[in-house]
Amino acid sequence: MTLATRLDSTPGSLPFPTVDKQAFRNGMARLAAAVNIITSRGPEGWCGFTASAVTSVTDSPATLLVCINRGTQSYLPIVNSGLLCVNTTAAVHEDLAMRFSGGVKDMAARFEGAVWIEGETRVPRLADAAVAFECRLTQVVAVGSHDVLICEVVAVHEGEEDSSLVYVGRKFRSL
Amino acid sequence: MTLATRLDSTPGSLPFPTVDKQAFRNGMARLAAAVNIITSRGPEGWCGFTASAVTSVTDSPATLLVCINRGTQSYLPIVNSGLLCVNTTAAVHEDLAMRFSGGVKDMAARFEGAVWIEGETRVPRLADAAVAFECRLTQVVAVGSHDVLICEVVAVHEGEEDSSLVYVGRKFRSL
Repeated sequence: MTLATRLDSTPGSLPFPTVDKQAFRNGMARLAAAVNIITSRGPEGWCGFTASAVTSVTDSPATLLVCINRGTQSYLPIVNSGLLCVNTTAAVHEDLAMRFSGGVKDMAARFEGAVWIEGETRVPRLADAAVAFECRLTQVVAVGSHDVLICEVVAVHEGEEDSSLVYVGRKFRSL
Repeated sequence: MTLATRLDSTPGSLPFPTVDKQAFRNGMARLAAAVNIITSRGPEGWCGFTASAVTSVTDSPATLLVCINRGTQSYLPIVNSGLLCVNTTAAVHEDLAMRFSGGVKDMAARFEGAVWIEGETRVPRLADAAVAFECRLTQVVAVGSHDVLICEVVAVHEGEEDSSLVYVGRKFRSL
């Protein structure tokens, strides 16, 4: 069963070519976004990566989405287990977010220096995240190089930290 | 043709009930997001609404997504025309964003007091937006009460303003 529709014949689809990659990237750099560490568990243990492309979708049922490059090391563990945790970072997590964005390649080493708790899904969650959402994957939508992961939220953990780490203008900022 | 897959039998899908609406909303309030005014054009003229659920999806091809409640007044004009503009707001646009989030019901009145330009898609774009993305809709994914609109970007307009309006903790903040 699927709920997606491709619109190959919308009135707007013909006369406008898609902009080039660099113009799009420069524009997107101006769109501020929360910094999240997405974690999961594969046959080889914990894994995770930093993502800013995370949004709420609906509260009926409680659902968020995460965009992921299909080439990312954590892709298969997430899709195969159907489980992931969205750890929304606070101001104190800038170094950790850098590590999970590729600054550290070794997966186990990315998790060092922070406290992680295995929640009810057994996926690691960041103990002092601003908020952490344990999720199960309910739908996957392929778009070019990426998948949009539609995720129902099975547990929410609000942290003590009320600061937010935000990425905008190709820099981390704190709020 | 469709590219979405529903995962009704993922390993994680059975034992975990979805969290309740209010717990989800409280958690989501901690996830900072850029404030965008999404505009389109219907048979009755310009229309638009404020959205924080906007993210980049992929640069190959240049694609973003917008989550929209199917009950929103601008929903039919957007899906029928297949055209929309994502206007990412700057610090100066707090009042405008409030208007488009329902503070003003009359659609024409929402557009007053700001300068709008009809770009190549003829959808209105905010002249002094931090950045504006003219888009055509390429895929629609239904998730509960909302649709995820997958949009290819056909024009990017970067503004002079380098501030960003962000929504977090149920408040507007400037960066």
